[in-house]
Formats: sequence, structure tokens, C-alpha cells
Amino acid sequence: MEFNVFAKACPSRPTLEHVTGRWGSLTMGALMDGPLRFNELRRRVDGVSEKMLSQTLHALERDGLVHREAQQTNPPRVDYSLTPLGRETAERLLSLIQLLEARMPEVLEAQQAYDAR
Amino acid sequence: MEFNVFAKACPSRPTLEHVTGRWGSLTMGALMDGPLRFNELRRRVDGVSEKMLSQTLHALERDGLVHREAQQTNPPRVDYSLTPLGRETAERLLSLIQLLEARMPEVLEAQQAYDAR
Repeated sequence: MEFNVFAKACPSRPTLEHVTGRWGSLTMGALMDGPLRFNELRRRVDGVSEKMLSQTLHALERDGLVHREAQQTNPPRVDYSLTPLGRETAERLLSLIQLLEARMPEVLEAQQAYDAR
Repeated sequence: MEFNVFAKACPSRPTLEHVTGRWGSLTMGALMDGPLRFNELRRRVDGVSEKMLSQTLHALERDGLVHREAQQTNPPRVDYSLTPLGRETAERLLSLIQLLEARMPEVLEAQQAYDAR
């Protein structure tokens, strides 16, 4: 079977959306530095609500991109990390993020020119 | 100035969202094959509404990623193409899309295992 994100019903489309969605992309980017606990992630992904981060992590875990590990401690501790496929995915995502961050002066200039028209 | 998508107020965050958003990513991916007219794009990006495609193109044009060229013909004809920065961005996006399409069997397997728990 061939997968194609351009086709409306292809199952690759929701997965692309989990990875590139507002919170999915930042969550995966944050996990590139190593495993994090829920509250650490929440601080790292500035602006995310508890509910949205929880939904984001569930979708990424279901896709096999994020691994959730509950430690048998008291209080219980849950670590989130990237799976090998999640890491490969996050590397490509970070390459995109780094390009955009580096070229933001060009983007801001284009926005100013557009708004002045 | 340093740009950082992880910071809530950084102007790089909306630009990342235009590029990786549901329709932004598919629109930029479609334009990798060369310039397209509005209706050609609409057919290529299966499922997009006229309104959403129009909003998507405006945001990408304002960010300097897509170039809009109105031809002086009758009826008027408008071509959309990637700018050089848009092309660099789309290349990194496509590399992510191709990875996910190729690894979808692994993703579907993870989803089945998750749902069976």
C-alpha cells in the first residue's frame, strides 16, 4: 500500500498533523534533548495548557512516536521520551524549525513589505 | 535578536504554524512541483475549501514563502509559486512528509497495539 498525505482519507494525514500541529511540533522538539516529565514539558512548551499537552502526548504515543514510562515510585513519576521513529521524525522537524528561526529577519521584512502595500 | 519557536511570543511561532498547519504544509508540498493556479492547487490539496486555501496562500505570501503573480490576460490568471526561501522550507517539510509516508506501516502497528491495550 502506498501512503500519500495529499489524499484526504490517507491515514498518514492525521499522523502528519500530530507531528506538525501547534503543540505536537513543539513537544517533539522539546523531547529531542532527552526524556522529560509532564510538568517539565509543560514549562518547556511555553503557553500549552495541561489538557492540550495531555492530548498531544496521547496522540504521539498512539502513533508510536513518543514512549510513556510510568516509574513505580511514590509519588508516581511519568517520563516521556521519543521512540527511535519519533527521534528520526523530530530531527527532520527541528531542521525545519532551525531554518525558519535563522531566516526570520527575511520573513519579517517580507511581512513589512506586504503590510505596506 | 534570537528567534525561538518555544517562546510563546516569538514571531517565528506563527510562521512555523503557517508552514506546518494542516493546509500550509500540503500547499507548500504541492508547489514543490512548480507554479500552480488556484484551482489546480485546490484539486491537488484534496479536501481544502476555497476559503481555507485562500487564507493559507495569503499567510504564506505575507511571510515571503509564496509568490503570487497575476498575469495580465483575459480572463486574468494568477500563478502561485515558492520563493527561494519557500523552496528551502518546503524541501525540509517534504523530507518530513516522505519519512512519515514511508514509515506508516510502523505507525499503524503502534496504533493497533495502543488501541488493543
